[in-house]
Amino acid sequence: MIDELQILRELLPGLPQNDSVVLGPGDDCAALEIPGGRLLLAAVDQVIGDVHFFADSTPPAAAGAKLMKRNLSDIAAMGGEPRWALLSLAVKGRPAAWIGEFCRGAAEAGQRYGVPVVGGDLAGLREQGIVGSLSILGEVPRGEIVRRSGARPGDTLWVTGCFGNSLASGTHLSFEPRLAEGRFLAANGYADAMLDVSDGLLLDAGRLAAASGVGLELDPDLVPRREGATLEGALSDGEDYELLFAVPGGREAKLVEHWPVTLAPIVRIGRVVAGSGEISDPAGETLTKGRKTGYEH
Amino acid sequence: MIDELQILRELLPGLPQNDSVVLGPGDDCAALEIPGGRLLLAAVDQVIGDVHFFADSTPPAAAGAKLMKRNLSDIAAMGGEPRWALLSLAVKGRPAAWIGEFCRGAAEAGQRYGVPVVGGDLAGLREQGIVGSLSILGEVPRGEIVRRSGARPGDTLWVTGCFGNSLASGTHLSFEPRLAEGRFLAANGYADAMLDVSDGLLLDAGRLAAASGVGLELDPDLVPRREGATLEGALSDGEDYELLFAVPGGREAKLVEHWPVTLAPIVRIGRVVAGSGEISDPAGETLTKGRKTGYEH
Repeated sequence: MIDELQILRELLPGLPQNDSVVLGPGDDCAALEIPGGRLLLAAVDQVIGDVHFFADSTPPAAAGAKLMKRNLSDIAAMGGEPRWALLSLAVKGRPAAWIGEFCRGAAEAGQRYGVPVVGGDLAGLREQGIVGSLSILGEVPRGEIVRRSGARPGDTLWVTGCFGNSLASGTHLSFEPRLAEGRFLAANGYADAMLDVSDGLLLDAGRLAAASGVGLELDPDLVPRREGATLEGALSDGEDYELLFAVPGGREAKLVEHWPVTLAPIVRIGRVVAGSGEISDPAGETLTKGRKTGYEH
Repeated sequence: MIDELQILRELLPGLPQNDSVVLGPGDDCAALEIPGGRLLLAAVDQVIGDVHFFADSTPPAAAGAKLMKRNLSDIAAMGGEPRWALLSLAVKGRPAAWIGEFCRGAAEAGQRYGVPVVGGDLAGLREQGIVGSLSILGEVPRGEIVRRSGARPGDTLWVTGCFGNSLASGTHLSFEPRLAEGRFLAANGYADAMLDVSDGLLLDAGRLAAASGVGLELDPDLVPRREGATLEGALSDGEDYELLFAVPGGREAKLVEHWPVTLAPIVRIGRVVAGSGEISDPAGETLTKGRKTGYEH
């Protein structure tokens, strides 16, 4: 199934767009023309019972909150501000109270970031299952949007927070989207490429490298590990919801100097080099060869 | 399940909103503040295998197109112009070709109305099933938005197209959203309340009446029936995707005179009277009593 989904994910970027679409499928969000000096950001993400949460043991409010926060993380990755959300839920085999808690969890997580759920749809499934889908809308000043594709050789490579062991530690539910961090980076020109790491650091780093048409030199020893995370886990566990970003060459010192102490810590883990999507360690060994790089949900 | 969903649908309009939300959950679309003289419209709707289409016999492109057109119909009901769509799909038990066709069907239906699919998410389900969710974005000039709640006693009540027998006739797949019709009505001040009839004429008419705080006098004999539709079917079958609208008192003659021949036919089926959500026939008999009024999917 995953292989098929991978093929189909490549279908979406091929769909016809028009002039109102500044950035179509393939980045964390689409960017759309609206009047004034801002772009409208839009993305959709799902949570599936027993794929993204434990249908029988995850509190429904936490599952709903995860759905909202996954999407907020996509807005963060563009340097944007989230504005509104639309929620759909298809379910069978859960009582009304469970569904109500799921919706409330999503709504309350949004409210913490000023994002109301402005519309929704609830439907019954024929077979057991839970499918939540949330579309997020946000805004970003036109000149400040940060895409995946802007990394250039000479940039340094950074991350927020820490990596690995997200599932066992409960971080996959309790994480907070890095909205303030993404906004600070975008507003001050500290990132020329960015994405949110949700499928595994190496897998997502490879996407940034491929979109930018560069290589990455990444030092595994510099990757901050969550408590209980192995080195391999930090590189590939997924569900971290941290930001990976490229800082324009020469801007590192200013970034460190100006980084607000109230925000999540940031760490340099490598640099951007010439190439076409490869990731290697400082000794020049390919990091992705013969290794699990992540997990596509 | 349907009763539970009904309860939960009432949960959505209760979710907290903010000042940027001109119109929250409960109408066909939410209306959101953006710069300039227009409002952003947003709605989400789903199609579920074996609920909204036949998982084994409906061509996947037709199922995908239905998902897009259901949402376009919600934009039409606000008098808006559709702009962009986000598509998510959760599936198990269908080959990649099926999924690809579903997505292409949605994208091509959107393209006919200038609506690109700007983002998407595809995920695997644990149990057999197909859940498509689409969020639609549109725009409407601020002064032209048509809500459900604007009907006033003295208005006349109108519909586009014809009703009933949508499933057997294949109309539930082949219908075209009434975008040009909704836009014409909104742009020229011919509708002060409108919605799209998707769950059955009486059920949806009751929603318009309740939202507006009025009663409706509806003459069943005036309701245009699709070929093969019974009177009862025209009143309650659902899946018609036609517009029901209230025309301000005194505007009927102008409406008839100006209605473009290229648009779907419109017919007056009754009038708006004082009341609080009741629907009666011209003899004063309640039309909703002891009768199926529609079907909530």
